[in-house]
Amino acid sequence: MKDVRGMTQLTVSLGERSYPIHIGSGVLDEPELYRPHIPGGRAAVVTNDVVAPLYLARLRSALAAAGIACVEIVLPDGEAHKDWQTLDRIADGLLAGRCDRRTPIVALGGGVIGDMAGFAAAIYQRGVPFIQVPTTLLAQVDSSVGGKTAINHVRGKNMLGAFHQPRAVITDVGTLGTLPERELRAGLAEVIKHGLILDAEFVAWLEASMERLLARDAHALVHAVRRCCELKAEVVRTDEREEGLRAILNFGHTFGHAIETAMGYGSWLHGEAVAAGMVIAARLSAEAGLLARADAERVRRLIERAGLPTDGPPLAYERYMELMAVDKKAERGSIRFVLLEGIGAARVAADLSEAPLRRALGQP
Amino acid sequence: MKDVRGMTQLTVSLGERSYPIHIGSGVLDEPELYRPHIPGGRAAVVTNDVVAPLYLARLRSALAAAGIACVEIVLPDGEAHKDWQTLDRIADGLLAGRCDRRTPIVALGGGVIGDMAGFAAAIYQRGVPFIQVPTTLLAQVDSSVGGKTAINHVRGKNMLGAFHQPRAVITDVGTLGTLPERELRAGLAEVIKHGLILDAEFVAWLEASMERLLARDAHALVHAVRRCCELKAEVVRTDEREEGLRAILNFGHTFGHAIETAMGYGSWLHGEAVAAGMVIAARLSAEAGLLARADAERVRRLIERAGLPTDGPPLAYERYMELMAVDKKAERGSIRFVLLEGIGAARVAADLSEAPLRRALGQP
Repeated sequence: MKDVRGMTQLTVSLGERSYPIHIGSGVLDEPELYRPHIPGGRAAVVTNDVVAPLYLARLRSALAAAGIACVEIVLPDGEAHKDWQTLDRIADGLLAGRCDRRTPIVALGGGVIGDMAGFAAAIYQRGVPFIQVPTTLLAQVDSSVGGKTAINHVRGKNMLGAFHQPRAVITDVGTLGTLPERELRAGLAEVIKHGLILDAEFVAWLEASMERLLARDAHALVHAVRRCCELKAEVVRTDEREEGLRAILNFGHTFGHAIETAMGYGSWLHGEAVAAGMVIAARLSAEAGLLARADAERVRRLIERAGLPTDGPPLAYERYMELMAVDKKAERGSIRFVLLEGIGAARVAADLSEAPLRRALGQP
Repeated sequence: MKDVRGMTQLTVSLGERSYPIHIGSGVLDEPELYRPHIPGGRAAVVTNDVVAPLYLARLRSALAAAGIACVEIVLPDGEAHKDWQTLDRIADGLLAGRCDRRTPIVALGGGVIGDMAGFAAAIYQRGVPFIQVPTTLLAQVDSSVGGKTAINHVRGKNMLGAFHQPRAVITDVGTLGTLPERELRAGLAEVIKHGLILDAEFVAWLEASMERLLARDAHALVHAVRRCCELKAEVVRTDEREEGLRAILNFGHTFGHAIETAMGYGSWLHGEAVAAGMVIAARLSAEAGLLARADAERVRRLIERAGLPTDGPPLAYERYMELMAVDKKAERGSIRFVLLEGIGAARVAADLSEAPLRRALGQP
């Protein structure tokens, strides 16, 4: 195996669906990481028109070195395309390329590509193997781990999807070198989230390391990505199908999804909406008496230092409620919120009254 | 429980995904069959515009008697609508009706409704519970058992789908009273198939009972439906994900799918295409030396007595091969065929040479 700087590996433990996550700088080029998962010598690579010019040739070379030919499916970039039409383009490319039930799909790109290629893998001929090669920080720390795949519906985000675990995740932090600044910051929202809900020590490390992360220091990035993957893998191991504990990963997401839906997919990045959602949720935790006000302020400050929005758009309270009621975390009519009980500790709460919600949304 | 004529029950054994099949005349109206599977008092019923005027009011009454309110989604009838667009209509209806992750979907209709509603249940919010109320013979003996769901793609039938087991199947043979003659016969194709691949005694019973079945005798229908469900349930129990044995259920389907694709979905009914496909496959079995010619003729005669086609459309050999190569049972380039080794015994074969295939297709 070639020298791959700072390469590290962890395992997501899900019985027969367990899989490795390889993290390092330059791992994209490593044929041996692909070979065991593509025994048939053939794969379909799904990527987009922004990532393809940057990394598709390198992936193609690595696969070729492992004796693997590939069908290439290049989609338009952006959350606006995370829909039926684009999913159908993937299906069309797979069928045109004569991919069968054993042809793995390799997702090369960010969260949108991972979600769509993963969903395509879940449903193409009722399920084919799937490998993630995430190229954005958001995908590396969050969406590539856990097996959740989906597309959006005009009535709501991620409304159609499947649980479909990858066979392997190959995470090259080197690809973050070409990531636009705004997307790097959006990815940091999910990094911060993992700390806030699960690991106070990691939050302290983030407070000390924010500048190195924003400067894309490879060692800091590998540490942050690895710690997030470890934390998320443990949650997913405990609750693969999101029946309990896994709900805490939605910290900031109930408000965040409402913001994304209200503003139209794409005008706010997912991580930006989650960032504002986390500040609101932390404020709500304080209003509900679970979190010290000083800790809610610490959350706000960390998010601010990552260059992320700390306030939602000026929507009426009623509009927020309407948007959150259709969110899939709503069950039996009541909206469930993930709240903090301290830095590094989260819990789910439902049936919050109107007053603290209005105050958290800054609408007294 | 009300008096339900000839009601019988069997269980599909799949560990924690096991579920009951209730078979009888009038079971559609029985509230107690629905109640245990819809604990939240709310369900979404998916049906079509042919079945709705016949049976939706009765289902609605039975659910109401069990204290269950329902969202109703009525789709256009026909295989031509088994596509993305119609699936999106289901999703739209579920979202508009504020259905959440625990709201079961009840499929009221034939195989197309079951496949689409089942696929919707598999992917709506990454999976919700699902109940089958099949109203065609095809759905009662085949598609409602086993958890295979799918939609068609312009490039091939059932190319996108999921394995998603129902929580219960409620099979009212009384609904076959309104089934068009042609569809009853198409359903008999799958009945015959179950006998041919698994149960010689059942084939003999079918030869003795064809007239009673065509006359829609309730006792004969309950017997046929029950035996098919038992046979299929045993195959599915052994091989839920279609990795081995389950492939024999595709007897007649490799040729059948080619016929359906070539003729455009809907011009041949699925069962009609499978019927012709079974005659071709039986002939191929004889050509390959696995089946006595007299038994191949016995297959042809039984299918003829059911009023089903015994020949495919006049497509060129090359066209058949091309259509079958894209079929999802094709793996690693070779086409796999399910052949008979006798009446009631099937096996999978690949890499058949051209000569017997041409003769089986009547193209020397």
